[in-house]
Parts: sequence; C-alpha cells; structure tokens
Amino acid sequence: MDNINISSDMPIGMFDSGVGGLSVAKEIMRQLPNEKIVYFGDTARVPYGGKSKDTILRYSRQIIRFLQTKNVKAIVIACNTASAFALEEIKAEIDIPIIGVVKPGAKTAVETTKNNKIGVIGTEGTINSAIYEEFIHKLKSDIKVYGKACPLFVPLVEEGWLDDDVTKEVVKRYLTELMDKDIDTLIMGCTHYPMLKDVIGEVMGEGVKLVNPAYETAVGLAELLKKKNILADANNMTNEEKYDFYVSDAPDKFKKFADSILSLNVKGAEKIDIEDYYERFWTE
Amino acid sequence: MDNINISSDMPIGMFDSGVGGLSVAKEIMRQLPNEKIVYFGDTARVPYGGKSKDTILRYSRQIIRFLQTKNVKAIVIACNTASAFALEEIKAEIDIPIIGVVKPGAKTAVETTKNNKIGVIGTEGTINSAIYEEFIHKLKSDIKVYGKACPLFVPLVEEGWLDDDVTKEVVKRYLTELMDKDIDTLIMGCTHYPMLKDVIGEVMGEGVKLVNPAYETAVGLAELLKKKNILADANNMTNEEKYDFYVSDAPDKFKKFADSILSLNVKGAEKIDIEDYYERFWTE
Repeated sequence: MDNINISSDMPIGMFDSGVGGLSVAKEIMRQLPNEKIVYFGDTARVPYGGKSKDTILRYSRQIIRFLQTKNVKAIVIACNTASAFALEEIKAEIDIPIIGVVKPGAKTAVETTKNNKIGVIGTEGTINSAIYEEFIHKLKSDIKVYGKACPLFVPLVEEGWLDDDVTKEVVKRYLTELMDKDIDTLIMGCTHYPMLKDVIGEVMGEGVKLVNPAYETAVGLAELLKKKNILADANNMTNEEKYDFYVSDAPDKFKKFADSILSLNVKGAEKIDIEDYYERFWTE
Repeated sequence: MDNINISSDMPIGMFDSGVGGLSVAKEIMRQLPNEKIVYFGDTARVPYGGKSKDTILRYSRQIIRFLQTKNVKAIVIACNTASAFALEEIKAEIDIPIIGVVKPGAKTAVETTKNNKIGVIGTEGTINSAIYEEFIHKLKSDIKVYGKACPLFVPLVEEGWLDDDVTKEVVKRYLTELMDKDIDTLIMGCTHYPMLKDVIGEVMGEGVKLVNPAYETAVGLAELLKKKNILADANNMTNEEKYDFYVSDAPDKFKKFADSILSLNVKGAEKIDIEDYYERFWTE
C-alpha cells in the first residue's frame, strides 16, 4: 500500500453491517462535531452476526479498501462482530489508526461493575469469539464474564417492534440465564441492541447497569486523534458537507433509517458495488 | 456463452439463499430419485428477503455462472425471492432450461381454492414484487390475492423456535389481517415457512389449506426434463455420488441442517468464493 500523508482535515472512515453503527456515528458527531465522516453500511450482506470469521474478514477488507479510496485519516469499526473477527488482522495490515467498539465497551464495563460479574449480549459471532471476555480479563483478571447470543434481537429491531410484548417475551427468554448469574453490569455488545434498552432495562431491573459501547468508542477515537495530532480544526461546514454515506444496497431505505436515528436530514446514501473492492487491491 | 451439449446424465443445478431450498431439494430427490443434484446455498449473504432486485439479480447471476461450471442440464431457483426478482431476466440469458418456485406454487393454489380468495406469505421482496398475484391472475383473473410479508419467520426458524409460544404470537400478529379476508388457501411463499406449518395451520384453522410450492416445483421439473428428453436413466448411484452441496460460508453448519432436513447423511458441503464468479464472465 502507498504511504499516504495523514492530515487533520481528512475524514474519519466508519463501517457497520448496516444501520446499527449509526448509533456510534451519532455519538462521534456529538463528541467530535468538527470531524468529517465517511460511513459505509453493508446493507447487501447484512447481518454479519451468524457468519464465519473468514467471511467477515473478507468483507471487512473490501470495505477498508473502499474507505481508503476516500482518503480517510482513521477508521472506526462500528460493528461488534467485525471488531471481534477482523480488527486485529486489519490493524497489522494498514498504516492508518483503527479502532473497534469492543475494547471501549469492555473498559466501561470494568469501570462500572461493583460485584465483578459482567454479562455480555451480542450476535453468535461476537459471543462465540469470547472477545469481550478477553479484553475484560486484560484489564482485570478476576472478573466473571457471562455471554449470551441473542439472534432474534436484530430482526426485531429491524421490524420496528421496540416497545412490544413479543419483544419483551424474547428478551426474557434470552436474559433469564444472565439474571441467574447475579450480574450487575450488562454490555449491549451489538450496535442494534441499544434500541431495545428500555425493554432490556425493564427485564433486568434497576440493579443492572446497561453499557452502550458507543459513548466510550467516541472518547477513544478522540484520544487517538489527539495523540496522532490529527484532530480536525473548528470549521463552519454544514452536516451535508461533513457527512457522506455509502451502502451496498437499498440507499433509500438506509436514508430513512439514518434520518430517524441521527435526527438530521442525511443528504442521501450512494450505492457502491462493494464486491469490486477485491482483496487483490490489498497489497498493490 | 458457449453452447453446451445437454445430456440426461448431467446434474440438476439448484440454489437458494441458504438452507430453505433444501425442502425443495428433498421433494426433487423423492420424485426424481435418478437425478444428480448440485445444490448451492448462499449462506454468506443470507437472507435475500429484504434486499433489492438489483442485488438479488447480481447474486443470482454469479450463482448461475457457478452452477454452469458444474455442467448442469437444468436449473431450479429454489428461493421465492430470487424467483420473483431474477427468473425472467436469467431465463433470457442462458441456454439451459430454468424454473422457479413461484409459478408452480401459484398453479397449486389456483387448483386448491374454492372461494377464489388466496393469501400469500413471504419475504418483503417476494410480497412487494406481487409476483404470485401476477402468476395467479394469468391462470384465473377473478381470484382475489392478499399478500403479507412476515420478516420474522426466517429468523425464528433459524433459531429453531418451531413449536413455541413466541412463534405462535408472531404468527397470529402477521396472519390476523389475512384471516379477516376470508381466504381458503394460503401459499407458504418462502422455503423456510413450511417448517412453521403446524403453527400456521393451528392459527389459520382447518378451513384454510396450506400450499407448499416444493411439491409442484418437482412435478414441473419432471415435466420439463421429459419434454426436453433429458430425464436421467435408472442407475445405482449412492446418495453420496448423486448429491453435491456448495455454500458461500459455514459448510459445517450447513451440513448439520442439511442432514436433519433431508434425513440423509450429506457428504459435506464445499465452500466457494461466490463473489469470484463475476458478471464479467457472463458474456464470455
């Protein structure tokens, strides 16, 4: 790969399997309002949660390559499954700073727990990777971590059944075994899940603090940009000038979702043939 | 594309977004036990149901190209969404016979209904395409057709919650509006749905006949092969010799599912990088 000169006025690149990562984008927009953002949502191949490491790594590499064509100065993997499966490999392969959502989420949870019992909910991929446990134990080895995959949460969110009896029943079904473990902290380890936080909170009760990794991810990004001396300067750019959205399918559906999550009028998303960003470009 | 000589001992090619099409494969194995089958499940990019026509057409073309490398004599699109979005275009582009599951399902429903009121359940893509309505009206124009997308059915089946209170509640929620239409026939227009037929039947009541397009698809395939004079001759091949399975991700998970649906010990599925079967090969 060519070495590029990184400068502070270049955008942040972000990606997710679809719309979930917009909750991370929103937090970055709030904490770092001067930054430009290029967001890619892999809406053609969503969801990532049940897919293998090989496949997620291949998809992530295509997307990183696409983001690099947009001259980004740093990359945020705003998807737990891709952070779990692809972050370490990709970090070793590119020259620009890159962070995921798992490490920040783990850090917040460790700072939150009082009884050293943390629950993690996420996709099959994230939970089977045991990546949260790994990061938590790096910070504090005597914490007990209990993981639970919740495959129906993403489709329930995408169906819009947020405050709903069926959803509450599904939440109870999945979370009972975590309640039995006496956890006091629960990491919402999938970017869709914070949209179910009211129901999850109701089921878990007031004694359990819910951790949303988005906040701490934005904090971590700010620290990283500061350390590299590439924080954007104050500017008068409009949201339309600052934020670019790309997807692999159905840009109109994405725009509607993005408008409602971000509470701003997105200028529209552009569709990209992401499969054309082959790995063969990777080492050129 | 090269013109190939079609002969009766070549295999049937089949594909689906994942494992759902195995219910169609099972029916073909039962009705046409001499036929060899090459099955491709697009497990990396599953589900197809919420994706756009452009994307489904692109994926279908890659898969057809892959099946052509296996020298198939005919192709079955064993997925309703791909049948709805891609069958007509692809039929015009290739030289070998190809059928989908929609037309056979529509035919059975027309033969079944007594009161000329048919319901169709399927993915967002299939229902929004109104393809069943189109085929039904070609056969009998005065039939009323009521469609309903049921996006949570596929994830519920994949989670294995088949005989389950949550599933029954979801089925009720989706199907109430069809019950109010006084339909006497319901097409299960997604290959996953027959796995929920007990719950669907219980909710709809005995007055409503459920149509599974798999049976009629196998009948249609047999007629097509006979007409083209390429029905396989009687042979003593074992199942392992006759049936080949390919997927785009997670072959072990696929094998487990296939073993249970097909009630035979599948020899294992091979993983293919399906994105490498680019459209640029299409016209070569």
